[in-house]
Amino acid sequence: MKAEIISIGDELLIGQVVNSNASWMSRELNAAGIAVERVTTIGDDVKAILSTFRRAWKENEVVLVTGGLGPTHDDISKAAVAKFFHKSLVLHKPTLRAVQERFRSLGYEKMPEINVGQAMVPEGFTALRNDRGTAPGLLFHEDGKTFVILPGVPVEMEFTMTNGVLPFLRRTYRKDLEAIRHRTLLTSGIGESVLAERIGDPTTFLRPGTTLAFLPRAGAVRLRISARGSSSRQVNADIDRAEKFIRERAGKYIYGSDDETLEAAIVKALTAVHKTLGTAESCTGGLIAAKLTEVPGASSVFMGSVVAYDNTIKESQLGVKHDTLGRFGAVSEETAIEMAEGALKKLGSDFAISVTGIAGPDGGTAEKPVGTIWLALAERGAKTGTKKLQLDFGRSLNRERAVMGALEMLRRRLADTV
Amino acid sequence: MKAEIISIGDELLIGQVVNSNASWMSRELNAAGIAVERVTTIGDDVKAILSTFRRAWKENEVVLVTGGLGPTHDDISKAAVAKFFHKSLVLHKPTLRAVQERFRSLGYEKMPEINVGQAMVPEGFTALRNDRGTAPGLLFHEDGKTFVILPGVPVEMEFTMTNGVLPFLRRTYRKDLEAIRHRTLLTSGIGESVLAERIGDPTTFLRPGTTLAFLPRAGAVRLRISARGSSSRQVNADIDRAEKFIRERAGKYIYGSDDETLEAAIVKALTAVHKTLGTAESCTGGLIAAKLTEVPGASSVFMGSVVAYDNTIKESQLGVKHDTLGRFGAVSEETAIEMAEGALKKLGSDFAISVTGIAGPDGGTAEKPVGTIWLALAERGAKTGTKKLQLDFGRSLNRERAVMGALEMLRRRLADTV
Repeated sequence: MKAEIISIGDELLIGQVVNSNASWMSRELNAAGIAVERVTTIGDDVKAILSTFRRAWKENEVVLVTGGLGPTHDDISKAAVAKFFHKSLVLHKPTLRAVQERFRSLGYEKMPEINVGQAMVPEGFTALRNDRGTAPGLLFHEDGKTFVILPGVPVEMEFTMTNGVLPFLRRTYRKDLEAIRHRTLLTSGIGESVLAERIGDPTTFLRPGTTLAFLPRAGAVRLRISARGSSSRQVNADIDRAEKFIRERAGKYIYGSDDETLEAAIVKALTAVHKTLGTAESCTGGLIAAKLTEVPGASSVFMGSVVAYDNTIKESQLGVKHDTLGRFGAVSEETAIEMAEGALKKLGSDFAISVTGIAGPDGGTAEKPVGTIWLALAERGAKTGTKKLQLDFGRSLNRERAVMGALEMLRRRLADTV
Repeated sequence: MKAEIISIGDELLIGQVVNSNASWMSRELNAAGIAVERVTTIGDDVKAILSTFRRAWKENEVVLVTGGLGPTHDDISKAAVAKFFHKSLVLHKPTLRAVQERFRSLGYEKMPEINVGQAMVPEGFTALRNDRGTAPGLLFHEDGKTFVILPGVPVEMEFTMTNGVLPFLRRTYRKDLEAIRHRTLLTSGIGESVLAERIGDPTTFLRPGTTLAFLPRAGAVRLRISARGSSSRQVNADIDRAEKFIRERAGKYIYGSDDETLEAAIVKALTAVHKTLGTAESCTGGLIAAKLTEVPGASSVFMGSVVAYDNTIKESQLGVKHDTLGRFGAVSEETAIEMAEGALKKLGSDFAISVTGIAGPDGGTAEKPVGTIWLALAERGAKTGTKKLQLDFGRSLNRERAVMGALEMLRRRLADTV
């Protein structure tokens, strides 16, 4: 069974918006048992839209389109769909009522006139409810093939996919769905080719239908095991087998799996040992705290943070000595230690991590260039550890790497402790 | 002149990785005067790769491919390129030396054997230097057409584009380059269709070759004016003209333009009036501070933050009264006010914003359901303002919206002040 996603929108082709919709849809379609063979991104251009529809409708059983369903003049997708299928647009009264109701509930006296167009549906198409916006999804099914067009605003696309499209596809293609599973092992502290040599030739341990992919990214390599087949039990067993083999060879570099983040792993580890954490942040400006508190349930282990961006705050709120700042500077091992130990005391936590550095683009010196970062990890009743990073990735990635470095430092301490 | 981007990688088709490379490349190509007509994403599959190469090489002057150039078994793109162009792979000694040197500088005794493959180049192709990794970019030019394949790791792709591909394209297609400009006006506080009615029919004020797009997203609508032409002066004048027209009709909803963020607008506004800011954050857990400190130059106006995730920290570090927490709860107008005023005092800033709420998924009650958020804005010598949000977007988006709400509150205060 073949499926293609077509993403329409000039904003995608000029690089203003990243195509996150296609990723989300692919993931959900995989989980439902449908593999996506291609994603085609084109602009708001009738000719390009029609020629792409023509090829995709010929080559696939399922074609999913997003974008260009809004109420304004630049939304041309619906007219193109009607033209492609030789259908006229007819008023769909339940949709009109829903749109009117939506405006009322948002406190408008009356619906702006241009929204009447939202309720026009190509003949023979099903209008899919969209409780998050005014453009309904549109679905057409003929001769075993399905064509769907959805609004491009992510929350609206997700609503219509979840409530309209996916249930329809699961029902309609029940007999053709495959078991498609992926498992990703997350490593850190080892490069791609060294890891590949350690694991060896994948054909010696992968069963047919199972593949292994190496996905490097800044400071980490992800190993994705994928399997497809008719039996979900067999597919899971094949993945388990491959994982076991990889763990035997590279287990100590693996910190988690799938979407697990380093911060989630830390919240889990802290929860398991009933310990609490605080942070003292300068150049990361609260980013470590923000990441940790993104994890549901963080409140049971995370006390809080002192973001001491200005040096006066390092003194007044963390008790860093004026003399220390004067002698060693704000970006120094000594200051990092006093920040972490100050946070431990102020926040009353069992652990505290601190970061102080020069993220850039300005503020560097010959002795301490941009990208110089000091990390410290304080623990109640233990000696405070430190680490220096020397980064060169620009402000945003320098901050990101500093966060990862600090979290990794804590993860290793927790792994040793437990 | 037509250009297409082909992104290769199973990780893109299963939704594991968002195709941010295509966005970055499109933006840079536009800036260089080359419009991208299509982005095609396919998996690590020789048949799909070859058939896509065939169509794209026929339809375009410039074809840019990313992905599948790594050293491991799942990287098959280079072999596919060689096959498509009927070229054999030959050892490129300067690349081999560069790869060996890279491993040495990373502290390895010797280069892993599988990296020799990185230095194999299809005959007649130019190897493009990649100082950020081991896979060189590969460029082929024939009969006025250019084919390029680049590594998929973003920092490596960006390096080879910036240093190899873009200079080549600018030089080679000098006479065919267009002036392509975009300007985006960022609005908040007004819905898409109401904004469209206010602005009116765009054909009445847009010059030929100029377009206007409405890009709605959670809580804001972006208006993008685009223009293409042979004269960059004319194109800029056309955009200025459209902007002026739109500002006359909807100026008060526009808070910035292009990539400007709300946090950058605030840093700018605070800098202009020589005022400082601090934050007191509970459910946003440092996210406001993290966003503000992402802005270069934030250090001159941002003092720091107290992330009081745990209630004991609200008392000990912000001076929220035990009685206030007991009587009104942590998520209340009273607590938000005491947090903001406490931060003002503790951090010594001119302004302080506070957030306390229930981001979810747990922690809601009948009286205070998940998504209940209180914001407060304290200012030295002025009455503290508050605002309540009632959100329903899930933990992550609830936090994001709370951040935007707090920043917007401050932005309006600053706009009134100045």
